[in-house]
Amino acid sequence: MPPNQLRQNPVTGNWVVITQDEVHDYSHYNEPANCPFCPGHEDKTPSEIYAIGKNRKPDTPGWSLRVVPDKFPTLQIEGKMNRRGKGLFNLMDGIGAHELVVETPDHQTPLAELPQEDIINLFKTYQARIKDLKKDGRFRYVLVFKNHGQTAGAAFVHSHSSIIASPFTPRRVKDEFRGAREYFDFKSRCIFCDIIRQEQEDDKRVIYENTGFIAIVAFAPRYRYETWILPKRHETFFEESDQDMASLADITKVVLGRINRCLDYPDDTLVLHNGPNLLSNRDGVYWRTIYDDFHWHIEIMPKVDPLSGSERSSIFGLVPISPEEAAHNLSG
Amino acid sequence: MPPNQLRQNPVTGNWVVITQDEVHDYSHYNEPANCPFCPGHEDKTPSEIYAIGKNRKPDTPGWSLRVVPDKFPTLQIEGKMNRRGKGLFNLMDGIGAHELVVETPDHQTPLAELPQEDIINLFKTYQARIKDLKKDGRFRYVLVFKNHGQTAGAAFVHSHSSIIASPFTPRRVKDEFRGAREYFDFKSRCIFCDIIRQEQEDDKRVIYENTGFIAIVAFAPRYRYETWILPKRHETFFEESDQDMASLADITKVVLGRINRCLDYPDDTLVLHNGPNLLSNRDGVYWRTIYDDFHWHIEIMPKVDPLSGSERSSIFGLVPISPEEAAHNLSG
Repeated sequence: MPPNQLRQNPVTGNWVVITQDEVHDYSHYNEPANCPFCPGHEDKTPSEIYAIGKNRKPDTPGWSLRVVPDKFPTLQIEGKMNRRGKGLFNLMDGIGAHELVVETPDHQTPLAELPQEDIINLFKTYQARIKDLKKDGRFRYVLVFKNHGQTAGAAFVHSHSSIIASPFTPRRVKDEFRGAREYFDFKSRCIFCDIIRQEQEDDKRVIYENTGFIAIVAFAPRYRYETWILPKRHETFFEESDQDMASLADITKVVLGRINRCLDYPDDTLVLHNGPNLLSNRDGVYWRTIYDDFHWHIEIMPKVDPLSGSERSSIFGLVPISPEEAAHNLSG
Repeated sequence: MPPNQLRQNPVTGNWVVITQDEVHDYSHYNEPANCPFCPGHEDKTPSEIYAIGKNRKPDTPGWSLRVVPDKFPTLQIEGKMNRRGKGLFNLMDGIGAHELVVETPDHQTPLAELPQEDIINLFKTYQARIKDLKKDGRFRYVLVFKNHGQTAGAAFVHSHSSIIASPFTPRRVKDEFRGAREYFDFKSRCIFCDIIRQEQEDDKRVIYENTGFIAIVAFAPRYRYETWILPKRHETFFEESDQDMASLADITKVVLGRINRCLDYPDDTLVLHNGPNLLSNRDGVYWRTIYDDFHWHIEIMPKVDPLSGSERSSIFGLVPISPEEAAHNLSG
């Protein structure tokens, strides 16, 4: 199969993938008997990239977590990017990496109900995969996210995360990079550090804190109850965090648990916004002094309000509960 | 009712509306007997702002087109904006204008099937309302769009357009302003003029041309069959176009008709991207020499592929047919 084609909107700079692939229907995977993520079905996925589990051979049962390539990747790992222009248009081949993290052997248990140890291992797996994928000089960003439930875009019932390495930075992350950079250029301070300080003083949207992390309902959320989890000390790169992953697992479990109780187990999306890939990674060197204006964090977005996809949503998100009220409802 | 609150994401600059309003259910308006847009039901809408129709009193039948305020506006017209900071956060009152254009007295006829004369009147109405709303110095942008069908976000069956004046520029339009500005700064040429020239030479994505306008399937579309209609001569402001609106009505009718035949009458959205409001409008003076780097155009987006709303879509749109094939299918 030739790779898909990546094309850039010449005005906005946003990328789209042009594909001739059929759309895959995964709905029959919802039955445990057909689920490619359940133990004993390891042959239904491509060979594993990474796994946690002692005394086992690859692609056999006995794992507690397993990372596999997406069977039908939109961006393929093999090949050169062939960046090229066509007059004023900009395109390249659809090169990238799509990996799926199977978070538990258990078909039904959602992330929020996994033992803390499993959540710690999940975050350590994210770190390991990010470190590995950042070595590939073709990729500009590694996006880690987790869709839970059909309305949040999850194709499978079995609890899993997605890791996509792409040869460009996703728009939403780029917008944050730009905003954080402009703030830092002017004030020589990290905007996320300033947000944390102000939120701690205001004490209206903070819902939980532990040793390393703070959870805040966003001041201007896109979705009701949108919650950010940030390391309290400034850190740019999640994969090099000095924080204890047990502390991160604790706060994640608390936030997801409270959202579930408050909104009756909604579908939701969790996404990691992390510092950028640096081209110098190829030499194993990070240019921290240049790139420390970003502050990694996790955003959790319950999908209670369906995205209208209408033009009105291009003007403003409409959030039918104040973040302060949401924070009150989520507070212990 | 106190106005809603507009809050800005301090990192990305995007605005959201925090509202305590209930969500309105309009589904019973789909029956002509209950439709507030059908003739004889003029008392079911707020008093009209503008109408086309001879020898009639306001808010009575006899019109062929009618503009009314939205009965449940998210942004309200009365009041001051109260722009204010709260530490590093930025907020203001939800001030703006929401108008609905009832395009025809006929409950069932969609825009594509209206007589050309009605479509000409619709565009002239857009121009009149934009001119009027741009006089209000509180507003930074007037967005005109038309959602057709439920999956495209239309609340009513009866054919209508929306006009929203807002005290900030919508994100998607801002992205285009920024891209066009950067291109112009570097090349001293309009990027849209360059796109038109290249598309005419390539002749792979042009689907129709008439005296004043050209219709092109976008090179990097967000939706399959996404089509742009542009004036062939450089113009920044739609409401001051030198082009014949009959020419615009002709090309719009042709494009919508072909999309309907090709995709079996899909839901779709039509949106006008227009030059910005200028604060100097208050004096009736446009600073054209500064602001001529944008090129107004209409984007038509059939909503065949449901928006996933998933995090994957924040990386790239996925378009399952090449724009060249789409253009081939849409060509005469």
